[in-house]
Amino acid sequence: MEKNRYKNGLDKLMEYTLTDNNDISTHLKISEDLEDIAPDVAKYIIEFAYGEIYSREGLSNKQRALVTISSLVTQGTEPQLELHINTGLTAGLTKEEIVESITHLIPYTGFPRVLNALTVAKKVFAMRKEEEEVKNH
Amino acid sequence: MEKNRYKNGLDKLMEYTLTDNNDISTHLKISEDLEDIAPDVAKYIIEFAYGEIYSREGLSNKQRALVTISSLVTQGTEPQLELHINTGLTAGLTKEEIVESITHLIPYTGFPRVLNALTVAKKVFAMRKEEEEVKNH
Amino acid sequence: MEKNRYKNGLDKLMEYTLTDNNDISTHLKISEDLEDIAPDVAKYIIEFAYGEIYSREGLSNKQRALVTISSLVTQGTEPQLELHINTGLTAGLTKEEIVESITHLIPYTGFPRVLNALTVAKKVFAMRKEEEEVKNH
Amino acid sequence: MEKNRYKNGLDKLMEYTLTDNNDISTHLKISEDLEDIAPDVAKYIIEFAYGEIYSREGLSNKQRALVTISSLVTQGTEPQLELHINTGLTAGLTKEEIVESITHLIPYTGFPRVLNALTVAKKVFAMRKEEEEVKNH
Amino acid sequence: MEKNRYKNGLDKLMEYTLTDNNDISTHLKISEDLEDIAPDVAKYIIEFAYGEIYSREGLSNKQRALVTISSLVTQGTEPQLELHINTGLTAGLTKEEIVESITHLIPYTGFPRVLNALTVAKKVFAMRKEEEEVKNH
Amino acid sequence: MEKNRYKNGLDKLMEYTLTDNNDISTHLKISEDLEDIAPDVAKYIIEFAYGEIYSREGLSNKQRALVTISSLVTQGTEPQLELHINTGLTAGLTKEEIVESITHLIPYTGFPRVLNALTVAKKVFAMRKEEEEVKNH
Repeated sequence: MEKNRYKNGLDKLMEYTLTDNNDISTHLKISEDLEDIAPDVAKYIIEFAYGEIYSREGLSNKQRALVTISSLVTQGTEPQLELHINTGLTAGLTKEEIVESITHLIPYTGFPRVLNALTVAKKVFAMRKEEEEVKNH
Repeated sequence: MEKNRYKNGLDKLMEYTLTDNNDISTHLKISEDLEDIAPDVAKYIIEFAYGEIYSREGLSNKQRALVTISSLVTQGTEPQLELHINTGLTAGLTKEEIVESITHLIPYTGFPRVLNALTVAKKVFAMRKEEEEVKNH
Repeated sequence: MEKNRYKNGLDKLMEYTLTDNNDISTHLKISEDLEDIAPDVAKYIIEFAYGEIYSREGLSNKQRALVTISSLVTQGTEPQLELHINTGLTAGLTKEEIVESITHLIPYTGFPRVLNALTVAKKVFAMRKEEEEVKNH
Repeated sequence: MEKNRYKNGLDKLMEYTLTDNNDISTHLKISEDLEDIAPDVAKYIIEFAYGEIYSREGLSNKQRALVTISSLVTQGTEPQLELHINTGLTAGLTKEEIVESITHLIPYTGFPRVLNALTVAKKVFAMRKEEEEVKNH
Repeated sequence: MEKNRYKNGLDKLMEYTLTDNNDISTHLKISEDLEDIAPDVAKYIIEFAYGEIYSREGLSNKQRALVTISSLVTQGTEPQLELHINTGLTAGLTKEEIVESITHLIPYTGFPRVLNALTVAKKVFAMRKEEEEVKNH
Repeated sequence: MEKNRYKNGLDKLMEYTLTDNNDISTHLKISEDLEDIAPDVAKYIIEFAYGEIYSREGLSNKQRALVTISSLVTQGTEPQLELHINTGLTAGLTKEEIVESITHLIPYTGFPRVLNALTVAKKVFAMRKEEEEVKNH
């Protein structure tokens, strides 16, 4: 049964992840980085975050990505924002929806958080474009 | 033209506001409270927040409410969260979507912010139910 | 197996809880409050927070309470701080250790968070003293 | 010499404090509240915050009050904001300067923190007006 | 009329900007960076932040810079702090006033935010010195 | 007497510092960095943070390090976290206790702060291992 939570979590995670793209490698890189000092934290991300929370009904993947991105812009935790702009795009958010969501936060967080988030978004968009171009050759 | 921004802002605000309900009175109460010490701040909320940011294209009213609520849960600014759970309901979010969005934030903000937000949501839901019951008599 | 995580979580939670005291009632009150709008969140607190995280090896209950309190003082989330000063006392921290930990945070969070936390601590200490006096009659 | 730091701190604190007004009583109330659980924290506020930091050269009392208020608005620590709007007025800031400083923070913190701060300011202004009226009879 | 807000904003921004210095280029760089993904955000900075908020009466440019810097130190948003230490110097704050304001925040934010802000200040001071030396040759 | 506070602070600081290791150099580097723009801040760290707060009774050095680390993980102030994971190890916390404390914060801060803190911990552990290996040759 525990195996199922892990399995469910991995399945759910894959819905947010391009297999030929840097966001899967980012997720894998997190697991690898944690492997030697805190392997259980990678397990909790799969089992609890993806296997339980993301696997709930009631919101679409796009809505979950929107909620996640809004929280991370507000916190200013940029490495995670980079990851979740990536997963948001894979879940079906357009670049325009992501930029619009960040812009919408100006009245709630002020400009500094918004500007830092747009810098992260711009970087992610450029990386994905590059990958697509490489793929198309 | 300035008049238009204010007018647009008020129109947009009304889309998020039940006219026979406490969220309009909350918005009006904010304006009244600010009237004697900072009337321009109420004006900026109408002109800039609603007249410019909320009036942009690219996200539905429901999506804007979702982004707003996610940011306010993360910040822990509870008076504004109460207001925007109200406006979110008026914009078309269901109670279930709001609770689900707050629940989704557990892996990103931890339990304390989520529990405090659910307490606020519960209060808003109860107030709106009461108002509906009064209205139906 | 899922039942075991819940069961483990409840057992672990009881180590932090006086059965004849207000902290159990606080924990129960949280569950009851969530019952009608977000029952799963109460379940995750038991299963994930207590059943998984608190059930790990490597830190004593007192150390876990110290880490929790330090984070909550820093965040300024006072309802949870009240609960966890209570659970910290039950786990074996002395009042002096709790006050000293909060005082130690002055150079890291500044005075405002520390003063607000001491106000919460004072309230919890008074409530427990009252309960003990009632019990001793 | 230690006595001097405490003495200097008290002297400096008095520059920010009306002796016939609620801000001295607020400061005294903080000391009294801490007396039984953390008396040293009250001592550090006098000796370190007022005796060392506030006693430095290079900024006027008004500038120090402005910096303090701006930080507390940003943090959302409202009990301290209430105290320091009071001390700011005593140090010579006008109500208009305080409201203007809070308003200036809209682009940096967003509206929620600003609105909560204006509510605190309004309360402080009303209390001081009341006291003045009582005094003038 | 809208043109006036933009024009006013640009004029006001120039009061905080050395035309032969890196802070104008920083401001321009922000606009350029946003050009392709979120051009309206650059417009809102000019029209709303500078054209409306900074153009208000009631505080001097130096006071506005002081309020801004205090908020950014407290938030720990370092790229914006770098920009506004620059604009603060152009607005007439001395290096000593800026360092003193950051130092004053120790009792309110703790040492970590203060140390990170001083590192930013040191970097800005060095860059401006370099530019002045280049200019003087 | 003032000299004693400074002297006490330095002595206390040395308890948290390997003399043949990078944490002493980090502490010294902070002092040197501040030397030309804010020398008093380095003095306050020694006199107030170490000479007064860390020199208090009631908590062991290990407990103080645990409280400090928990606050810094929660704040996300990474340069200081790096320093205090170092001082925590010198004070006697094991790597396992530090990783466990960070992991314990998942339910209180969410995953983003925890993941960023584990990245810092991994870096510190690697640096200390390298230094030990160099020393043993």
